Amino acid sequence: MKTEVTVFCPATVSNVGPGFDLLGFALENPGDEIVVRRNDIGELRLINESGIDLPMDPSKNIASISAVSLLEELNITDGFDLIFTKKIKPGSGIGSSAASCVAAVVGINEILGSPFSTPQLLPFAMEGEVFASGSYHADNIAPALLGGFTLIRGYDPLDIKHLPFPDDLYCAIIHPDLEFKTKEGRELLPKNIPLKTALIQAGNLAGLVAGLTTNDHALIGRSITDVFAEPIRSKKLPEFEKLKKLTLEEGALGTGISGSGPSLFSLCRSEDIATSVAELMKRHFADHNIKSEYYISTVSQAGCRITG
Amino acid sequence: MKTEVTVFCPATVSNVGPGFDLLGFALENPGDEIVVRRNDIGELRLINESGIDLPMDPSKNIASISAVSLLEELNITDGFDLIFTKKIKPGSGIGSSAASCVAAVVGINEILGSPFSTPQLLPFAMEGEVFASGSYHADNIAPALLGGFTLIRGYDPLDIKHLPFPDDLYCAIIHPDLEFKTKEGRELLPKNIPLKTALIQAGNLAGLVAGLTTNDHALIGRSITDVFAEPIRSKKLPEFEKLKKLTLEEGALGTGISGSGPSLFSLCRSEDIATSVAELMKRHFADHNIKSEYYISTVSQAGCRITG
Repeated sequence: MKTEVTVFCPATVSNVGPGFDLLGFALENPGDEIVVRRNDIGELRLINESGIDLPMDPSKNIASISAVSLLEELNITDGFDLIFTKKIKPGSGIGSSAASCVAAVVGINEILGSPFSTPQLLPFAMEGEVFASGSYHADNIAPALLGGFTLIRGYDPLDIKHLPFPDDLYCAIIHPDLEFKTKEGRELLPKNIPLKTALIQAGNLAGLVAGLTTNDHALIGRSITDVFAEPIRSKKLPEFEKLKKLTLEEGALGTGISGSGPSLFSLCRSEDIATSVAELMKRHFADHNIKSEYYISTVSQAGCRITG
Repeated sequence: MKTEVTVFCPATVSNVGPGFDLLGFALENPGDEIVVRRNDIGELRLINESGIDLPMDPSKNIASISAVSLLEELNITDGFDLIFTKKIKPGSGIGSSAASCVAAVVGINEILGSPFSTPQLLPFAMEGEVFASGSYHADNIAPALLGGFTLIRGYDPLDIKHLPFPDDLYCAIIHPDLEFKTKEGRELLPKNIPLKTALIQAGNLAGLVAGLTTNDHALIGRSITDVFAEPIRSKKLPEFEKLKKLTLEEGALGTGISGSGPSLFSLCRSEDIATSVAELMKRHFADHNIKSEYYISTVSQAGCRITG
């Protein structure tokens, strides 16, 4: 039996365009590393080697909440150290909490000899995510765990479909130095919406799924439109519509808010286009006196994995 | 130049499960036949050889409304006879009006030497459909014209995606002798819906599209659920939920209301299952003293076509 494993877990884009709460995808960069190690103190111990502030009280740390839910399901009282080297910044909108939760359960499951299959780990990872965001949404957890594009067909019961997608999709992610709170973002959303708006969103999500599964890049592009959350959340991003238009002119297939923001994602057909788009977005934010940093990544076929 | 053509146009299922206004598919049976013939009286003349009552005033006949919109676009004042042999009963919920509209424009376009491509005929066919149903919806017209499963990604502008689908899909259609009015059905729908309901519908539609394009029959089945129109429209169908459950137990992948009813459709994986399901539905309606007739059909790859 292993007593220590190193786990890599990718950042993820959720709420992809019209896929509010329903569609997410995995990146290759950035990603978190967590070392999971058996200890002999019979409890979870958290060690932060990230240089990023993280709550180190196990009752408030989302990775340990997920880990505890897994251990309780198996009636296991062994202790584990979770040693974090996080690169995905909390609050950036690219699945930082999901990566922590998923990495913890994947690592512990591996040390325990894989009592659960990878998809079976999803509900445990969700426990921490619910604590983090205050809502039961799986569109970061699922791609972080499984990789690729994941569609949440439904939540009752949780039904996830791993989608095929074109192999030439690159993503520009830009994280402007702005603070968006996920919980606040949700509270701003209307409880009721016009049926007509619901049909626009459903048509676009179905179009996006059809575009991904049939390699129809133009359809992917036309479908990346969110009429639920983006009109509200984008108000906090200076000249968002103008920026979006510029990214499309630069060659992006589509651009939207990642998760509940403030990061933006642009899906592109090459690394070069993604880089030009990221540079353009960086200049846009700089023009508004907002610092930002960007990542260029493929859409990753692989999700969270044991690397050592 | 041809002076006369015979056109076959298939019946269609619209509002497929969660695809309210957005998803439809073509059947092979039943279908309408229309003969289109140049005449020398310089106007449209309608001849009904159907044994079914049809409005024969060109200003109220939907096929002639579509035909006129096509001829006006081309500034053509030639006359045509439209000779109808309809087998798709008006008001049955399987695209009777769409078939008439599509057949008329396909036939006239052929006689004129195909000035328009098949997809370009869609807006003309829509003109009659809008008159018939009082709403701008393309989920019968598009599959009647193009065949297969068609997704309406959006209406502004009209954006249609022809979806790949499994080659073993059979459909049982049952038409109970009940009267549903499309216009009335629409007026009963709420103008606003909970965001949560919109997400359920969007997830199911995206799931259905993913199931179709990746040959995932189980996912197709789990996704055929409509939380927009079916809860309202099914009230007029006796013991609808019980009947739906029985069809699934009989082997149907999914069952729902076709269009705005009263016909029901069941998608099945074989002709035998479709036949058993249709017989079961027929008995169900008979138990409620309602006459019905059914059709068994493949999902047709082909749409409207010239047959002679």
